[in-house]
Amino acid sequence: MRVAVLNGPNLNLLGKREPSVYGRETLADIERRLRSLAETFGVTLTFSQHNGEGELIEAIHALRGCCDGALLNAGAYTHSSLAIRDALVGVEVPFVEVHLTNIFSREPERRHSMLAPAALGVVCGFGADSYELALRGLVARVVPRG
Amino acid sequence: MRVAVLNGPNLNLLGKREPSVYGRETLADIERRLRSLAETFGVTLTFSQHNGEGELIEAIHALRGCCDGALLNAGAYTHSSLAIRDALVGVEVPFVEVHLTNIFSREPERRHSMLAPAALGVVCGFGADSYELALRGLVARVVPRG
Amino acid sequence: MRVAVLNGPNLNLLGKREPSVYGRETLADIERRLRSLAETFGVTLTFSQHNGEGELIEAIHALRGCCDGALLNAGAYTHSSLAIRDALVGVEVPFVEVHLTNIFSREPERRHSMLAPAALGVVCGFGADSYELALRGLVARVVPRG
Amino acid sequence: MRVAVLNGPNLNLLGKREPSVYGRETLADIERRLRSLAETFGVTLTFSQHNGEGELIEAIHALRGCCDGALLNAGAYTHSSLAIRDALVGVEVPFVEVHLTNIFSREPERRHSMLAPAALGVVCGFGADSYELALRGLVARVVPRG
Amino acid sequence: MRVAVLNGPNLNLLGKREPSVYGRETLADIERRLRSLAETFGVTLTFSQHNGEGELIEAIHALRGCCDGALLNAGAYTHSSLAIRDALVGVEVPFVEVHLTNIFSREPERRHSMLAPAALGVVCGFGADSYELALRGLVARVVPRG
Amino acid sequence: MRVAVLNGPNLNLLGKREPSVYGRETLADIERRLRSLAETFGVTLTFSQHNGEGELIEAIHALRGCCDGALLNAGAYTHSSLAIRDALVGVEVPFVEVHLTNIFSREPERRHSMLAPAALGVVCGFGADSYELALRGLVARVVPRG
Amino acid sequence: MRVAVLNGPNLNLLGKREPSVYGRETLADIERRLRSLAETFGVTLTFSQHNGEGELIEAIHALRGCCDGALLNAGAYTHSSLAIRDALVGVEVPFVEVHLTNIFSREPERRHSMLAPAALGVVCGFGADSYELALRGLVARVVPRG
Amino acid sequence: MRVAVLNGPNLNLLGKREPSVYGRETLADIERRLRSLAETFGVTLTFSQHNGEGELIEAIHALRGCCDGALLNAGAYTHSSLAIRDALVGVEVPFVEVHLTNIFSREPERRHSMLAPAALGVVCGFGADSYELALRGLVARVVPRG
Amino acid sequence: MRVAVLNGPNLNLLGKREPSVYGRETLADIERRLRSLAETFGVTLTFSQHNGEGELIEAIHALRGCCDGALLNAGAYTHSSLAIRDALVGVEVPFVEVHLTNIFSREPERRHSMLAPAALGVVCGFGADSYELALRGLVARVVPRG
Amino acid sequence: MRVAVLNGPNLNLLGKREPSVYGRETLADIERRLRSLAETFGVTLTFSQHNGEGELIEAIHALRGCCDGALLNAGAYTHSSLAIRDALVGVEVPFVEVHLTNIFSREPERRHSMLAPAALGVVCGFGADSYELALRGLVARVVPRG
Amino acid sequence: MRVAVLNGPNLNLLGKREPSVYGRETLADIERRLRSLAETFGVTLTFSQHNGEGELIEAIHALRGCCDGALLNAGAYTHSSLAIRDALVGVEVPFVEVHLTNIFSREPERRHSMLAPAALGVVCGFGADSYELALRGLVARVVPRG
Amino acid sequence: MRVAVLNGPNLNLLGKREPSVYGRETLADIERRLRSLAETFGVTLTFSQHNGEGELIEAIHALRGCCDGALLNAGAYTHSSLAIRDALVGVEVPFVEVHLTNIFSREPERRHSMLAPAALGVVCGFGADSYELALRGLVARVVPRG
Repeated sequence: MRVAVLNGPNLNLLGKREPSVYGRETLADIERRLRSLAETFGVTLTFSQHNGEGELIEAIHALRGCCDGALLNAGAYTHSSLAIRDALVGVEVPFVEVHLTNIFSREPERRHSMLAPAALGVVCGFGADSYELALRGLVARVVPRG
Repeated sequence: MRVAVLNGPNLNLLGKREPSVYGRETLADIERRLRSLAETFGVTLTFSQHNGEGELIEAIHALRGCCDGALLNAGAYTHSSLAIRDALVGVEVPFVEVHLTNIFSREPERRHSMLAPAALGVVCGFGADSYELALRGLVARVVPRG
Repeated sequence: MRVAVLNGPNLNLLGKREPSVYGRETLADIERRLRSLAETFGVTLTFSQHNGEGELIEAIHALRGCCDGALLNAGAYTHSSLAIRDALVGVEVPFVEVHLTNIFSREPERRHSMLAPAALGVVCGFGADSYELALRGLVARVVPRG
Repeated sequence: MRVAVLNGPNLNLLGKREPSVYGRETLADIERRLRSLAETFGVTLTFSQHNGEGELIEAIHALRGCCDGALLNAGAYTHSSLAIRDALVGVEVPFVEVHLTNIFSREPERRHSMLAPAALGVVCGFGADSYELALRGLVARVVPRG
Repeated sequence: MRVAVLNGPNLNLLGKREPSVYGRETLADIERRLRSLAETFGVTLTFSQHNGEGELIEAIHALRGCCDGALLNAGAYTHSSLAIRDALVGVEVPFVEVHLTNIFSREPERRHSMLAPAALGVVCGFGADSYELALRGLVARVVPRG
Repeated sequence: MRVAVLNGPNLNLLGKREPSVYGRETLADIERRLRSLAETFGVTLTFSQHNGEGELIEAIHALRGCCDGALLNAGAYTHSSLAIRDALVGVEVPFVEVHLTNIFSREPERRHSMLAPAALGVVCGFGADSYELALRGLVARVVPRG
Repeated sequence: MRVAVLNGPNLNLLGKREPSVYGRETLADIERRLRSLAETFGVTLTFSQHNGEGELIEAIHALRGCCDGALLNAGAYTHSSLAIRDALVGVEVPFVEVHLTNIFSREPERRHSMLAPAALGVVCGFGADSYELALRGLVARVVPRG
Repeated sequence: MRVAVLNGPNLNLLGKREPSVYGRETLADIERRLRSLAETFGVTLTFSQHNGEGELIEAIHALRGCCDGALLNAGAYTHSSLAIRDALVGVEVPFVEVHLTNIFSREPERRHSMLAPAALGVVCGFGADSYELALRGLVARVVPRG
Repeated sequence: MRVAVLNGPNLNLLGKREPSVYGRETLADIERRLRSLAETFGVTLTFSQHNGEGELIEAIHALRGCCDGALLNAGAYTHSSLAIRDALVGVEVPFVEVHLTNIFSREPERRHSMLAPAALGVVCGFGADSYELALRGLVARVVPRG
Repeated sequence: MRVAVLNGPNLNLLGKREPSVYGRETLADIERRLRSLAETFGVTLTFSQHNGEGELIEAIHALRGCCDGALLNAGAYTHSSLAIRDALVGVEVPFVEVHLTNIFSREPERRHSMLAPAALGVVCGFGADSYELALRGLVARVVPRG
Repeated sequence: MRVAVLNGPNLNLLGKREPSVYGRETLADIERRLRSLAETFGVTLTFSQHNGEGELIEAIHALRGCCDGALLNAGAYTHSSLAIRDALVGVEVPFVEVHLTNIFSREPERRHSMLAPAALGVVCGFGADSYELALRGLVARVVPRG
Repeated sequence: MRVAVLNGPNLNLLGKREPSVYGRETLADIERRLRSLAETFGVTLTFSQHNGEGELIEAIHALRGCCDGALLNAGAYTHSSLAIRDALVGVEVPFVEVHLTNIFSREPERRHSMLAPAALGVVCGFGADSYELALRGLVARVVPRG
């Protein structure tokens, strides 16, 4: 099973950016943790980060036929990008929406997700653990319990 | 560590109620699975279901000082009950909001959660697996990684 | 054919409560009238009233597999309770929404029904006669004209 | 007792128009059924259909002083025509609003009635039976139970 | 003169629940104070708390003909329950709406009261004193100044 | 100077229709009064009433090049008809919007005029006198004070 | 008969202020014209202008018991001042709302009147003639046609 | 192939009505052009204009079973008429919505189409050419490219 | 302890203004009553009324450092004046918002208070008694129970 | 005449992406068809696709002074990008907005175009034919009929 | 060049009023600073503060023909006063809107300016420096760079 | 002191793009002017322009730890980009929002800034001078007056 983990704008700042909100773990820390969990599932992981909407869309296009599922933390694009949702639906790859923070306890402009209606599920609020939970959820749904 | 799992209205119908939406597993199946996972964490689990808003509130009150965290699937009360949110905040027990379905891909009246702003995190869309992921997330957050 | 008639909050006050709005007939009067009409159709009737949302939900659950249709006057819960609608859909019993008054000529908060989208039909504004018309409508729809 | 039954735009297509939504009975079938029921009540019935808003208004004007009640299925004008409501209030004839379908389970633009605030009551969702129930309701309200 | 004091959901937690918001006095403290004030007015007091909406409705029904006025702190139900307002109007007992906190300086979802349109008056923001002021106001309005 | 006075739906009922709202003068009375005033200004008057939106539009079309100004009481079409406004703008005849009642003190659906943005001016609330004032205003504007 | 003509903020600039919108006549010109018309009706006129909301309110208070009707052009306060409406209702003097321009063809913030619901009628769009028409309308309504 | 071209209110004024907005071509010019294009496709054309909503509905009814597609410029009815949409859906004739102007660059009340959700496609902004493009589009869709 | 009682626009009309709404007591009556109650608390009272927003603001400015608390009935300015709220916050004097009527059972434009978010508490609906209750509440909060 | 055809995000997936919605023709097929039509008009065509908003903006900038018109299918950016509209207006190139699907019969978030107010016209709903119709419309408008 | 600096309600409290928000400089400090800067530009400055809306309007009227530009900090009136905007437009004096704080990072009711649409420009968020920047901006715009 | 000046989409067109709105100065002219002013303050300036949202975000990321403040004219992204605001907050560089035009006097979609809540201050409406004023304001705030 091949899983892509896609990260959106500003996530490269993780660890330094508003640590009281986003924690002190860096994106590299998250990648390391996730690779270690993926291994236990026999899952091959690709991991990337993109600040541009167009680049994120093209990274999604590249998944078509090449991966079995995705985790997506689209950052601030979560709340507005119909183009990213269209890309996800267009490539026919099941995905889980992930957020470090509980977006529902933050500013009003972060409480709505444009992507969620197309997602398999949503995990948010567990910091870096959100990614691990999302990976478990994705694996369980795509390869359902025998 | 003691964890309470609280279920709201209509969840007693699980397995029979709109199986194409909610799946065929019953609440007893979910309880069984969850107890088995809890055991591996050394977590003591209580598990209950309540159709009345007042009863759910009183079940929450009973957690005060008696448990270390909770999973809550408040069903349709999720979207409207300020009283349940007040109860949760009042007893000072960290909780994770859980849903079987991805509430963000359903009818508009299910896309807003009155409870989420007070939650630690939210997990939705993974069917019965949502409960397991939420338990993992709760345990990880309440007893953080050493 | 078995039909359940379910009444929501404050309907036990009927006859005494704002008679200029709701009329002078009591719920017992309505039950009597309705039983008499049901008899002519060979319909077995159960008739109950519940002030709590949770109790109403449980009364609905009890209908599953035990009745062929229902009349529901959910009183003020009509306008807000997604949980009651979920219960009705969950038990798969066709129902007719009934109101004594024409809810569309009253205060704005009474002009929207959360339940109606799941109903077979709606009858309102005929006082106690609304129940009789609803019973006729239900019987005709569930046992259609040969 | 004289009762007018007025039908609005597109109802002449009944039976042919979207039969999965509106059923296969024609307006003539409904008229026949209704005349037969009216007879049992000693009610004289007039029955007409109008595609124009102005024509429907003039048909309503003609009721003034000439009939004791009306059934009105104003079709799509139901949702927008203040002029038809003004006509109904102007001629002082009590009327029941009728719909073949349950308008509350349809598109948002059909869920609001401009006419209902002026109606005696509303019956919808029972197909052609809606007319019969409405007639019963009207007769019972205009000639109340002795 | 007989006065009922009714308290809604979560008020049993008073003193322990968010003391920085609701203060350290318990509901028993408030009852004690209020009884002492009532005595000086020759008022007989009943005092109760209910977490369920249905139970609160039934407590209101019980007032019909048995008391001359009521104080009501409906907690979070204040903002949404039409059924409680219907109960209050139905039993024809004048009541004063009471809140410990100034609900208008709190979250948006607490700034609207569904009950206030039916109340004699509203007192909020004075902590436990709100109840005493409300009792004074109720007594003065029901037994007006000679 | 030639002036057309156009009246919309239900105005033929004037005198009989809700006299407490619209007064007891008939449309014929208003016509008589207006003709008498018009004479003093040397104005030739045409006067008509139309219940259909299409008929009113065609009556407006007929004004093109044949009259110097118009008074329009479009009744309930005032609040919704863009087609009538288009007709008025299309024929390039200056007009005054007239209402018997003060539409701003009535139901919300009557407080907005679709036509007013294209009008010379608006006169409302003076009963039949509104027409006379409007005629004076129109004459003064179209033949301005020397 | 005594009539007060009250003018609100910025009307002292008339003639100089945006003449393409408000015309070249000054407030003194309007006063002169209006006095001349009032004389023909045997009406005693007072005429004033106030830039402050409080001053306008006090000018209205002074009318109580001292005049039989009023014309009010409250300028920009028209669209927001509940206090001025309260003053008008409080002194029980019938008034006509007047505007030089057709406020309904201007910016959105000018299309709503806070005062109109309490007015006898509204006249707008006829420039200085609006005042004359309003005076005629007021006189006719307060001293109705014999 | 038979195609009906239906035109709504005020389009008979074309050429004279606001030529800076709608151009100088008349409806007869458009008809002539369209007939000439239709001929090249072997399409039989009917062409009509209707100012009344009811008449337009009846013109649509007449298409049932008699034509293979339609072009519709419903003028100002475009933005509000559910009855016309119902008629179009009822007769099961595929249609293209046409406008002379780009309705999306005009006043807000013209930017929404009630009809478009039921249309095959929309062409607007090309003046009289809009009709020709719409005819080409309709023909290509109804008789798809071999 | 020094307390200022500030009254806003139109309150000078009290007793004469809409007595069915506001009662027959005058502002002087209220002042008399309040002075007598203040005496029993050893409170020095200043009492004033202002029709202008600017004057009310300046009266509030004068309280800075000169008084320990205030009662404010800002009349219609309650619902719109951010400037008055700024003044109150600026002078750092705790205040209670007072209304004679229950503003929540009146017109929609009176149901929102711009001032309440900055108030200690709110008392409304008890007629002149509202002032007395507010004074008691203010004294109890500013000099809390020993 | 030189015409640029610009395509926005996800259009490179055409043919594979949701073929039931967008059809089976690829963007290369559309380009081929369009070049063939352009040739018949003597039009020189450039054709490109861009997934990034910034890249699309820069492609638009490149048109300044180098082309006489454009066709733009901005995909999901249509509904939100003010920056793209600014670019189009900034380069002063007339353009036609094109969509494969009838955006008005799809999800609410696709029914509004941020670009259309600046367009010459709009063509949507004809699949790949939309481009051909748009090219015809553009050519006819930019080089109007002699 | 003559420039007027006008300050609205509560600005007289500057230095004492919420210093954490508005800073510790007084209005006199700002005036001093501004006079010193004005001198370097050869600008004659008048400087005033007004708590009443009417007084501010009259201060604006006094500018007509007597000054070449203005700085306006209208305080809380900024967000609601159409009358002040009318005064500014009426006297034809170009003005710059100034705020000490960044009004866009404050409460929602401060984020909209009624005045800004008529302003030359807006400067906010620089404390007392906002005035200096605004003066520079005004001078540069009114006497543009040679 | 190091200051970065960042410009968003379409600003490279300055001087040529809608000169009646944006003026005739080019971005190079603004840079020249600004460099000259910066020199007088001993400020080192970097100056760049970016059409892509992702590129602008990355330019902001590059500021972290490398500059003391920024001026940002984000063009049309101002009104919608939460991702840019997140980047600005994430790099912890104080910035001033700049616009050439007074965005509050333009189309509604330009009147709201997504970025302003995170800015130090806002300067708009002074054309190229806006940048100079913003630089002065930034310098004064970051190196406050001794």
